[in-house]
Amino acid sequence: MPRIGVGTDVHRLVDGAPMHVAGLAWPDEPQGLAGHSDADVVAHAACDALFSAAGIGDLGSNFGTSAPEWAGASGCALLEETARRVRAAGYEIGNVAVQLVGNRPRLGPRRAEAEAVLGAACGAPVTVSATTTDGLGLTGRGEGVAAIATALLLPTPR
Amino acid sequence: MPRIGVGTDVHRLVDGAPMHVAGLAWPDEPQGLAGHSDADVVAHAACDALFSAAGIGDLGSNFGTSAPEWAGASGCALLEETARRVRAAGYEIGNVAVQLVGNRPRLGPRRAEAEAVLGAACGAPVTVSATTTDGLGLTGRGEGVAAIATALLLPTPR
Amino acid sequence: MPRIGVGTDVHRLVDGAPMHVAGLAWPDEPQGLAGHSDADVVAHAACDALFSAAGIGDLGSNFGTSAPEWAGASGCALLEETARRVRAAGYEIGNVAVQLVGNRPRLGPRRAEAEAVLGAACGAPVTVSATTTDGLGLTGRGEGVAAIATALLLPTPR
Repeated sequence: MPRIGVGTDVHRLVDGAPMHVAGLAWPDEPQGLAGHSDADVVAHAACDALFSAAGIGDLGSNFGTSAPEWAGASGCALLEETARRVRAAGYEIGNVAVQLVGNRPRLGPRRAEAEAVLGAACGAPVTVSATTTDGLGLTGRGEGVAAIATALLLPTPR
Repeated sequence: MPRIGVGTDVHRLVDGAPMHVAGLAWPDEPQGLAGHSDADVVAHAACDALFSAAGIGDLGSNFGTSAPEWAGASGCALLEETARRVRAAGYEIGNVAVQLVGNRPRLGPRRAEAEAVLGAACGAPVTVSATTTDGLGLTGRGEGVAAIATALLLPTPR
Repeated sequence: MPRIGVGTDVHRLVDGAPMHVAGLAWPDEPQGLAGHSDADVVAHAACDALFSAAGIGDLGSNFGTSAPEWAGASGCALLEETARRVRAAGYEIGNVAVQLVGNRPRLGPRRAEAEAVLGAACGAPVTVSATTTDGLGLTGRGEGVAAIATALLLPTPR
C-alpha cells in the first residue's frame, strides 16, 4: 500500500540575507530568507512531506534543537538525510512535488536546475512549480515565501 | 486505482475556550479554538481530506446545519463517522497525513498520543506533524491555528 | 509507480467582475475574481496539481506570457489542455481533488454540477469541496478566494 504525506513551510523575507530556495543560491535577489539553516522553504516542505508520509515525525523532531549537529545545515543536506531516514523506515520514495508560493524568486528559468539538485538530494523525482497570490496575504505582500509539498512512498519490497 | 484527497481547516484562537487539537485536550493552553463542535482543526482537515478523496462532499455537507445531530460533536467522533462513510462508499483508507500549522499547542511531545487517538478513530494510520510560519500570517500572528491534510484511499476489493 | 502533485491558487475579489469558480458562472455573486483568464482558482489549482504530478512545469510556464494564445482562456479550457499535456507526457489521470477556501461562492448546492463540468474537462474524476477560515486571513477577510488541489497519476500502460 502506498503512503502519502504533506508539508508546508514559511520563512520571512529580510534584507541582507542570502536567498537559498529550491536547492539553489539566488545571488541577484535583493532579499533573502531568515531562519535556522538556510531557510529553504522548498526543501523544508519536501522534508516535512516525506516525514509525514513515513510517519517519522517532522523537521522539528528530526533536526530541531535536540539535534544541534543539524543546525545551519542546507536544505539539500536536510533533504538528503530525510530521504535516508525514510528509506531506513522501510519505504521507497515514489515522487515529491513542491509548489513555491511567493513573488520572488522567479523559479521558471531555473526550474530544471532546481529539480535536478533536489532530485539528486532525494534520490527520487522532485518536481518544483511556482505561483503567486495576487498581491494578497503574507506572500503577496512580500513579507515571506511559502512552499507546499506532497510526497508518495511505497513500502520497500522485502 | 487509488484515490487521493486534500483538506484544510482554520479556527480562531480565543481566550476562555478549551483547546482540543489533534484528538487531544490541552488543558494547560492559555487559549482555545472557537467554532462549531470542538474546533479541532487537525481532525477536521483529516475529515475533509477523506471526504475529498472519496468524492462524498465535505464537512459542511456531511455534518453542517442540515445535520444538527452532529452539532457539537468532537473532532474524533467526526473522524470516526467520516471513516465509516468513506468505507460505505467503497474505499479502504490507506493513510491520512495532517500537518498542524500554528504557534500553539506544541505538538512534539504528544505526537505519538495524537497519532494513536486519531488512528483509532479512523481505523487507519494517521500521521501528525507540525510547523510554524515564522511569525507571519494568521497563524504566525497567533490569530488562529490551521491544518492541512491529505488522504489516500484504495477501492475495497470485491 | 503512481505520481502525486499539488497546486494552490489565489485570486482577488473585486467589484464589477463576473465570478467564475469551479468551472461554473455564478451570476448572482456581488463580486468576482480578478486575474488573467477567468481567474477560476479551482480550475487553476487543479491544473497546477496535474502539471506538478507529471513534472511538466506549471500554469505560468505552460500558459503564461510566452503562450499568448491562452490569454483569457477559461479555467475549463486550461484544465482540458492540461489533461491533454499530462496524457501526452505518458500518464493516466487517476483523480484530482480540489478544496475551495473562501467565503463566497457557496459551493454546496452546486457541487455535483461543478464536479461534472471539471471532470468532463479533465476526463477523470474531479472532486470539489469547500471550507472557510473563520474570518481570518486573506480569504476570511474577503480579500480573495483560494484553492488547493492534489492529483494522482499512473503511468500509461505500454
